[in-house]
Amino acid sequence: MDTPFDPRPIGIFDSGIGGLTVLRAVAQRLPGESLIYLGDTARVPYGSKSPRTVARYTIQVADFLLARGIKALVVACNTASALGLEALGRHSPVPALGVILPGARLAAGTTRNRQVGIIGTRSTIASGAYPRELTALDSLIRSHPLACPLFVPLAEEGWHHHPATRLIATESLQPLMAAGIDTLILGCTHYPLLAPVIAEVMGPEVTLIDSARAVADALAGRIGPEIRPAPPGARPTRTLLATDVPDRFEEVARRFLELEESGGLERVEMVDLQP
Amino acid sequence: MDTPFDPRPIGIFDSGIGGLTVLRAVAQRLPGESLIYLGDTARVPYGSKSPRTVARYTIQVADFLLARGIKALVVACNTASALGLEALGRHSPVPALGVILPGARLAAGTTRNRQVGIIGTRSTIASGAYPRELTALDSLIRSHPLACPLFVPLAEEGWHHHPATRLIATESLQPLMAAGIDTLILGCTHYPLLAPVIAEVMGPEVTLIDSARAVADALAGRIGPEIRPAPPGARPTRTLLATDVPDRFEEVARRFLELEESGGLERVEMVDLQP
Repeated sequence: MDTPFDPRPIGIFDSGIGGLTVLRAVAQRLPGESLIYLGDTARVPYGSKSPRTVARYTIQVADFLLARGIKALVVACNTASALGLEALGRHSPVPALGVILPGARLAAGTTRNRQVGIIGTRSTIASGAYPRELTALDSLIRSHPLACPLFVPLAEEGWHHHPATRLIATESLQPLMAAGIDTLILGCTHYPLLAPVIAEVMGPEVTLIDSARAVADALAGRIGPEIRPAPPGARPTRTLLATDVPDRFEEVARRFLELEESGGLERVEMVDLQP
Repeated sequence: MDTPFDPRPIGIFDSGIGGLTVLRAVAQRLPGESLIYLGDTARVPYGSKSPRTVARYTIQVADFLLARGIKALVVACNTASALGLEALGRHSPVPALGVILPGARLAAGTTRNRQVGIIGTRSTIASGAYPRELTALDSLIRSHPLACPLFVPLAEEGWHHHPATRLIATESLQPLMAAGIDTLILGCTHYPLLAPVIAEVMGPEVTLIDSARAVADALAGRIGPEIRPAPPGARPTRTLLATDVPDRFEEVARRFLELEESGGLERVEMVDLQP
């Protein structure tokens, strides 16, 4: 007997804690859906690893979540989206979404002068994934990709408003200032934490694109015929898994949990991908 | 027939590329010995991971090197030395040395006012390994441990002499300035790259302790009755292994190889710890 509903959770995967911004956006956009988040904190960061390793880790994490019975998979990590999504598309029996295409679509719809900056980890930028999608959407868009590897540790360590961070941002973003972009994709889940400093450096003419909201909208658009929605009235669950649980994961996760308005959130559970 | 010589290589293990400072120190101190270095670059950094995970990774890497036939194992990574060496000591059939004890010994022999600072990753500092060894060596030594998590990315990204690095170092090291230390253990293999900035901030009264040289001396002291030396006249080999080979590993490794005065160095070989 086929029903139009599917109570199974949606899986969200990130290399670490940054993807919690995506979890939050999805929970706000789709409050009735159960969510299961896996942060591969034992192997974070992905951004400095080779394409082959990132693709291998992505498939491994997807298999783990698929075995838990998910109905769709969101790859919240930009690096894994850039380097692992193609292999995942062939591999996964359920719909798999990354953050690159939704972010690129939002940027293409935002830019007026067609000069779009993209900042991300070394691996995300080296992959060329954002420029590829932007060109496919509008061949007149000129992409300005830039790796900002120091932004992740600065965000994680809480130096959001420090003069040193402003110095590093000013120097790092100089090529984008010079290029005259009017739209900047924050191509890493950590970067929204530095958005105030980045906005200050780039000035009010530049619109920042946060792919967390873009991917939540894209996911919502596929709920219906392609991904069956949760049964109405069912109580959604939120499960957090991590491959390692340092103290700070629980700390940061808890900060995010307080922002959740719907659904109970279980404690962080540590899982082993290689039993 | 037992000979007083053993041609097998000495294994050196680090979470990433930082331990190449130890490889270099050992190669200079023991030019006749064959060396095999493994950087667990697919899972770097260890410094933000839990004790359980670091200990598990340490044993896994040790098993891999033991299977390659080593006669001794140097754990170049401070975090792995702090959190994995005890388990490794029970596990390994060959002598295993970490960087903590040699570094602590050198610091205890250097300090005059018995106020010793230790900087390292979050995990190394949380382990309390250096203060424990320092107290065991001299119960009157007062330890001042301090986690400096931003120093690793700043060193890796080449911001060694940037004003932002000086700002971060000045603010981070403030508690050690206030404590009046006269000796500072660089408790992370990456930190020697920032030594000029750290020395400038701390001033000429503070002696910096680099544990790479200390562990090379400690290893040399055990070559003889405990670890049989390489046969005289044999041509030593240097093998570099990594669990992931991003472009920059080869770049940095090559820089180190040029500094080597003896022995041929093979290309970086990528290995998989979980076949």
